Amino acid sequence: MVDIATRVYNHKWKIDPIVRSLIDTDFYKLLMCQSVFRNKPDTQVTFSLINRSTHIPLAKLIDEGELREQLDHIRSLSLSRGESTWLRGNTFYGKRQMFRPDFMEWFEGMRLPPYHLERKGDQYELTFEGKWHEVMLWEIPALAVLMELRSRAALDPMGKFELQVLYARAMTRVWEKIEALREVDNLSIADFGTRRRHSYLWQDWCVQAMHEGLGNAFTGTSNCRIAMMRELEAIGTNAHELPMVYAALADDDAELARAPYDVLSDWHDEHEGNLRIILPDTYGTKGFLDHAPDWLAGWTGIRVDSGDPATAAQTAIDWWRARGEDPTTKRVIFSDGLDVDKIKELHAQFAGKAKVSFGWGTLLTNDFRGLVPKDALAPFSLVCKAVSANGRPTVKLSDNPNKAMGPADEIARYKRVFGVGEQTAQQVIV
Amino acid sequence: MVDIATRVYNHKWKIDPIVRSLIDTDFYKLLMCQSVFRNKPDTQVTFSLINRSTHIPLAKLIDEGELREQLDHIRSLSLSRGESTWLRGNTFYGKRQMFRPDFMEWFEGMRLPPYHLERKGDQYELTFEGKWHEVMLWEIPALAVLMELRSRAALDPMGKFELQVLYARAMTRVWEKIEALREVDNLSIADFGTRRRHSYLWQDWCVQAMHEGLGNAFTGTSNCRIAMMRELEAIGTNAHELPMVYAALADDDAELARAPYDVLSDWHDEHEGNLRIILPDTYGTKGFLDHAPDWLAGWTGIRVDSGDPATAAQTAIDWWRARGEDPTTKRVIFSDGLDVDKIKELHAQFAGKAKVSFGWGTLLTNDFRGLVPKDALAPFSLVCKAVSANGRPTVKLSDNPNKAMGPADEIARYKRVFGVGEQTAQQVIV
Repeated sequence: MVDIATRVYNHKWKIDPIVRSLIDTDFYKLLMCQSVFRNKPDTQVTFSLINRSTHIPLAKLIDEGELREQLDHIRSLSLSRGESTWLRGNTFYGKRQMFRPDFMEWFEGMRLPPYHLERKGDQYELTFEGKWHEVMLWEIPALAVLMELRSRAALDPMGKFELQVLYARAMTRVWEKIEALREVDNLSIADFGTRRRHSYLWQDWCVQAMHEGLGNAFTGTSNCRIAMMRELEAIGTNAHELPMVYAALADDDAELARAPYDVLSDWHDEHEGNLRIILPDTYGTKGFLDHAPDWLAGWTGIRVDSGDPATAAQTAIDWWRARGEDPTTKRVIFSDGLDVDKIKELHAQFAGKAKVSFGWGTLLTNDFRGLVPKDALAPFSLVCKAVSANGRPTVKLSDNPNKAMGPADEIARYKRVFGVGEQTAQQVIV
Repeated sequence: MVDIATRVYNHKWKIDPIVRSLIDTDFYKLLMCQSVFRNKPDTQVTFSLINRSTHIPLAKLIDEGELREQLDHIRSLSLSRGESTWLRGNTFYGKRQMFRPDFMEWFEGMRLPPYHLERKGDQYELTFEGKWHEVMLWEIPALAVLMELRSRAALDPMGKFELQVLYARAMTRVWEKIEALREVDNLSIADFGTRRRHSYLWQDWCVQAMHEGLGNAFTGTSNCRIAMMRELEAIGTNAHELPMVYAALADDDAELARAPYDVLSDWHDEHEGNLRIILPDTYGTKGFLDHAPDWLAGWTGIRVDSGDPATAAQTAIDWWRARGEDPTTKRVIFSDGLDVDKIKELHAQFAGKAKVSFGWGTLLTNDFRGLVPKDALAPFSLVCKAVSANGRPTVKLSDNPNKAMGPADEIARYKRVFGVGEQTAQQVIV
């Protein structure tokens, strides 16, 4: 029986929106947004799309009109009543009223600021300018839109059954990964795959499959909308943009050296327990930990997001031990370039030495490698970053020189201030 | 948006019917039915279910009540107006009005006769008695019901995503077969998989996938209902039951020896062209061809359904040549135990020597091998055959002693009459 109303509604549909809600975003974005709203409400920033995979000609693959339609649609979104109720009433990391009333009131009235889009050769220049706590909310939806429009371009020529078999193959692949992960004792893994997902519906499928297949070993998803709809935990803490903007705002080298700790000091005041997770690699993990104040050693854990993950985890374990902490009570969250083999390897290596968790991103929610001709659905490295704050350029070094960004002279200054020496280059897959 | 009416309708649904139409059956059944209706209208037969795979305890797997519900539902079916229109108005093998008005009038009023069901240990005894042209129409739906109830039993404990991934895997497998078959030049292949299909919906999916994936190389389906719904060719000619019943009706050895040719003589009067396909193996291919009247050599082709297919095809080619016919103008249809490798091998061997076609059955519409624990969906050998006619037992020898059936003394008599010597046993997979 055809549902006539649905069919007619579908007919009238101008676009099939890729981002259908303001909370179709990563949970940590909202936590950071609240922190920025409180601590740095007047900071002006520019965020910019950066396609690290320059061989993917996004402007040839994606129609500019379609891209504008999707971005305009996102600007029309506002927090729905149910979403607001969920943010206000839900427990996050066991805590109620994680989001304060003044923040929620502001968020309920918020619309995303304008975007600037220009084609430059085969790439798009896409930037967002304005107040930090508003502009920052563009990052995840902008990435999701570009990822999904590129997916749609690759799927466009395919037949009905060819498409069904494509998804059958992708589902089988995800399920085989889940079956392999089932064998890992005491696994703790979450979905971190919003930003580079194949599509919203596909991420939603992957999350539900993880939930059915892994049970309690699946701890939740970073995607607030999916967490709400599927009654799962929303997962995440903080990201590089906090130290990057704090650092850009520093007036001299001394303030710069202190900036990453200022970020965590503000965070310390706002959060406790599982939300006190150190992200140490923005300007080099080693130097960050060496110069960290003692109170930071009391935090719950660390997130490893660049460089060789085993080296970084061992560095953290040694650091805790040196500061008189018991590493087996600490959490190490791996979140960079993970797939099943890497997860199993890191788990085998560090289970028992620390509490190990995984934030699994692109290769959970966008592993269509080898499934279409010319590998046109292979994941690629697209980011959307704060490139300046109050007119000053931002800098990221990370533990992988291939992930560094910022003007060359500023990179050199940051390396000097943070005492970063030789780094080992790692291939950036996604 | 939920379609409320559909949901409520689903609620009220007592059973999810496995056979939803009297023409959810093989096309050749209807051709044979018309022939029997005209030539042997007073013959009384008994058909019986035979599970050759005795290690599959059907009565333990399938609830008797559910089985009765499904069989009762089939007895409630009658030809719908649209189905009647399709049978009357469609072209089959290029011919209009394949089904004569008197046959159609009878068929429009027909209901299937009663069944007799009894549990015997771990198996069911399921028999059908009555007029041949009525009872014969039970064969395909009875097999489809038992196959699908057994599938449902295996699927019952599975979770939602586990189920989805099961079908994803099965779809991927079918598609990979289709992709492999795409490489075969001048392929001609049809779906013959109704009787041992996984389910109706699955057969329907496989047929559509074959259609999209193979284009004109896919010549159609034996399933009338699917042919009608998907606007494809209905494919099929005749089966062993004709010579088996004709042979059982023979009053002496001379009549018995003539019976298989009497069948084809009746067929010759009724059909031409692509419907004149010899099925020679009921009592041994070699002897059948050696003793065949010359007019049979003028027929369009042969169907190879038991024994070593290459040997049988070569026997036919040699026979045509000996009778002064050009084998390259003749069609050889392979229909026994086919899968991709066998299809490619036989095609490579006989393309150029004859017109080669394939009737692909169980391993198209029911290949779930290895996809569930204990291989509980592996295909098995279930048949529903005429076991007696006018009180006399039927006999089938075929080119594979493992497929022989009938009382031992009658088998011996038939072997003598038809001059069947040593036969090579072949494993019966499906």
